[in-house]
Amino acid sequence: MRNKAEPEHKDDAIAMVQKENNFSGWYSEILKRAEILDVRYPVKGVYVWYPYGYKLRNLVYGFLRSLLDKEHEEVQFPLFIPKEELMREKEHIKGFEDEVFWVTKGGSTEMEIPLALRPTSETAIYPVFKVWIRSHRDLPLRIYQIVNTFRYETKHTRPLIRLREITSFKEAHTVHATRADAEEQVKKAVALYKSFFDRLAVPYVITKRPAWDKFPGADYSIAFDALMPDRRTMQIGTIHLLGESFAKTFDIKYEDKDGSLKFVNQTCYGISERCVAAVIAIHGDDHGLVLPPAVAPIQVVIVPIVFSSKGKDKGKSVEEACVTVYEELKRAGIRSFIDNSAERPGAKYYRWEMKGVPLRIEIGPRDLENNSCEFVRRDERDQKQEKKRIQIPFSDVVSEATRRLGAIQDSIHEAAKDALYSHIYIYNHKSEENMEMEMEMGMEMEELKRKVEDGTGFGIVSVFLCNSERCGQELEDQLGVSVLGEQVYENATGAETGGKKKNKGRCVVCRKEAKRAYIARTY
Amino acid sequence: MRNKAEPEHKDDAIAMVQKENNFSGWYSEILKRAEILDVRYPVKGVYVWYPYGYKLRNLVYGFLRSLLDKEHEEVQFPLFIPKEELMREKEHIKGFEDEVFWVTKGGSTEMEIPLALRPTSETAIYPVFKVWIRSHRDLPLRIYQIVNTFRYETKHTRPLIRLREITSFKEAHTVHATRADAEEQVKKAVALYKSFFDRLAVPYVITKRPAWDKFPGADYSIAFDALMPDRRTMQIGTIHLLGESFAKTFDIKYEDKDGSLKFVNQTCYGISERCVAAVIAIHGDDHGLVLPPAVAPIQVVIVPIVFSSKGKDKGKSVEEACVTVYEELKRAGIRSFIDNSAERPGAKYYRWEMKGVPLRIEIGPRDLENNSCEFVRRDERDQKQEKKRIQIPFSDVVSEATRRLGAIQDSIHEAAKDALYSHIYIYNHKSEENMEMEMEMGMEMEELKRKVEDGTGFGIVSVFLCNSERCGQELEDQLGVSVLGEQVYENATGAETGGKKKNKGRCVVCRKEAKRAYIARTY
Repeated sequence: MRNKAEPEHKDDAIAMVQKENNFSGWYSEILKRAEILDVRYPVKGVYVWYPYGYKLRNLVYGFLRSLLDKEHEEVQFPLFIPKEELMREKEHIKGFEDEVFWVTKGGSTEMEIPLALRPTSETAIYPVFKVWIRSHRDLPLRIYQIVNTFRYETKHTRPLIRLREITSFKEAHTVHATRADAEEQVKKAVALYKSFFDRLAVPYVITKRPAWDKFPGADYSIAFDALMPDRRTMQIGTIHLLGESFAKTFDIKYEDKDGSLKFVNQTCYGISERCVAAVIAIHGDDHGLVLPPAVAPIQVVIVPIVFSSKGKDKGKSVEEACVTVYEELKRAGIRSFIDNSAERPGAKYYRWEMKGVPLRIEIGPRDLENNSCEFVRRDERDQKQEKKRIQIPFSDVVSEATRRLGAIQDSIHEAAKDALYSHIYIYNHKSEENMEMEMEMGMEMEELKRKVEDGTGFGIVSVFLCNSERCGQELEDQLGVSVLGEQVYENATGAETGGKKKNKGRCVVCRKEAKRAYIARTY
Repeated sequence: MRNKAEPEHKDDAIAMVQKENNFSGWYSEILKRAEILDVRYPVKGVYVWYPYGYKLRNLVYGFLRSLLDKEHEEVQFPLFIPKEELMREKEHIKGFEDEVFWVTKGGSTEMEIPLALRPTSETAIYPVFKVWIRSHRDLPLRIYQIVNTFRYETKHTRPLIRLREITSFKEAHTVHATRADAEEQVKKAVALYKSFFDRLAVPYVITKRPAWDKFPGADYSIAFDALMPDRRTMQIGTIHLLGESFAKTFDIKYEDKDGSLKFVNQTCYGISERCVAAVIAIHGDDHGLVLPPAVAPIQVVIVPIVFSSKGKDKGKSVEEACVTVYEELKRAGIRSFIDNSAERPGAKYYRWEMKGVPLRIEIGPRDLENNSCEFVRRDERDQKQEKKRIQIPFSDVVSEATRRLGAIQDSIHEAAKDALYSHIYIYNHKSEENMEMEMEMGMEMEELKRKVEDGTGFGIVSVFLCNSERCGQELEDQLGVSVLGEQVYENATGAETGGKKKNKGRCVVCRKEAKRAYIARTY
């Protein structure tokens, strides 16, 4: 298939929107030009995965599966949830009722009981857990599924980020004998998510969401947030300690060793295709996608440099050299592709840079004479915006490609971490108990406002904030931000701005003793 | 998780329903006991995939994917189809309108335009093909997706077979410049389906469905049918030549080399989780599943024979021997599992036979002394219903396991083919043009009725039948069968019953010249 968006002339290429100045426009353009998603489907908030986008999606989720498969088993539960089940957990449904799609007709028949399309699957899965679990020997139980889920989003929708059909929702659900076991599982899930996002080279902050913003029905929620180029944070993963609340609603009990019946303790944790959005948004540049080699559908593209006017023999041997290199890379397990199309090399460079292929190998007649080829990294450009070319002898192609793919993976991860940490500001309050509070608070708010200013401020600011919803809400209202929550599971490097981080302080609103919390504008 | 259905005493094991006498009861029991699907979900026609069932499903679809990936690209289109698009192809919607689920509410808001849940995706995909395809250079275009689809079935639903949520619908859609190219693709799809079902060891007949039973909107439909143990056929795969009909409805044109605009020619072909149902139904026996090694989640189960009363040292070395064998098998790419549970060996045999594991390796203290282990095949039983045990030296475990897994695959495939062919009856009409037609026809109908008798007759009968809907319907009504269609793509071996097959004859109803057609009771 031909992508209408792909330019046929170099002038079109230059028309690419700049990421720095207009992230939103850049994001839309890149989804189209790199053939990730087609947004022209005639229903709001749902999109079409192009083949290239779906390959990226499959590699990302393939890795997620391999992490989960160590201790979880994959299952699949139905999309339909009967109204009665969905409504049983009072707090849970309050969190979702405005967002649920309802099936009310089959053929021309009105259905007696409307069926909800799962917004998430707790209420589909837990009635079945009730019949699966009898004894302590059935625990722990750890399952996951990767399914489409549905949310009737009334806000502005956005591909991969705010969707009416989440096509690739990974939801894990675990059941344990004790709360301690469940909390241990939360830690394991955090470790698993770290491995996952590290492989995507997507850096994150980990917080415990404030009580008023936790998952409906959970005891508490842990969240991973990434920083997007427009300096807003995007929630990319959540882990919930459910405790006994759903167990009590759905009457899930087990017989303990001593014969007594006890409620189970549960956790659940989810990741959606926002993980793909983060990869695209964080690493991409004005020339297109920059994919981490670990999940790039094509890790190496081989471009033959054949001059049509000159002798065909030479052309033929260039082609042969390309095939030899391709075969060697393939044998080494490197996902490679030879671009044999009739286009000019420049058009090929443009296309594969747009698609984020980490490494390009060029082979021309002169290279053949030198028994070598040229490597060009996607992630490197000198100050004149020109690509560095490095001569590599044919004999070293596999070892050098392997080494450089590793280096690219590390390099874009480091760059992304730098971008995150340089946009975290550690705010050390000046206030002491006996200062004039009113004035002081006014000044602090003004200063914080500048720090979180839309577009020019830092992305994330660390402040002291108490646990009360009143204080949190007031700070959110005054600054136009969200409280991400208390920083947990140490994850920043100390590279943040704002000097040495004090760990004890007083709430920026009520002045009571408080811990640190992250605040940010969010998606 | 513990499966409540698994018996704790041998007596329960015996309570397994017999496949021969009560296929329907046997099928339900086995889905539960082998942990394929849990049918206790509180919505009609939708079910829960257990972990073991889902592993089988993933292996089956993984192979299907690998076949498709050679010439198709995987994509994903939305579940929602706007009413207007679904209604555009008149003939198509007539075929589906009674079966469509409608989403009419989001939150508490009535939706302006009701959204259909895809019953199949032609009307979701083809409006997008219209914008993807411009030139002959964009053709052929071959894509597929594996998605959940929905049918408001009002008939009796049945797990994996007749569903309201088809969880795993593989639908391929291809676009070509000419009708000849599209017909060539139909042939390729037939070859692909043959490879697929051969790997599942599921034999089939291939027919061209009668015109009145083709896919709504298609020029013609090719179908694969398997014979179920109750001697009814089940459609397990279909391939449709769409020609230009959808192209005209959705205005899909391409610019040919000469600059002229032409309608594209299309095909589509689908397979659902009925392919898994066929594997279960066709190979299983009164002791449970019998899985083809190619798709068995566990190909070899290793059972240590440890006598708890005797010396622990011996037990330990048995365990070590099991681990050594397991590691060797794993290195050779054989999916293996050691059953280290505390149960008696008999209970383990029962469980893994139920789950259809093709090969069991038993290792006990006496085997250690002989430096060997015992192989037991799932598919073999002597006349006393006892399993044959074969001594295999440890040094030959991998080579012998590989060889025997291959032999099991072939053996159950051959057995299934025999079961199919011995239930096909070739009916050679006695009639000649100048016979007394009335009487003759009455006699033929009586004879045919006996041949297709429910339960005792043949499964499939080959008769001469003309193409007219009137004759087909009359035959269906009189015999209580369906016309599968004209036999195409030679696939039976000549092992059918009924003697030498005449290829020319007269329609069993109207006596006009006719080709052969298969008739059968169907799912």
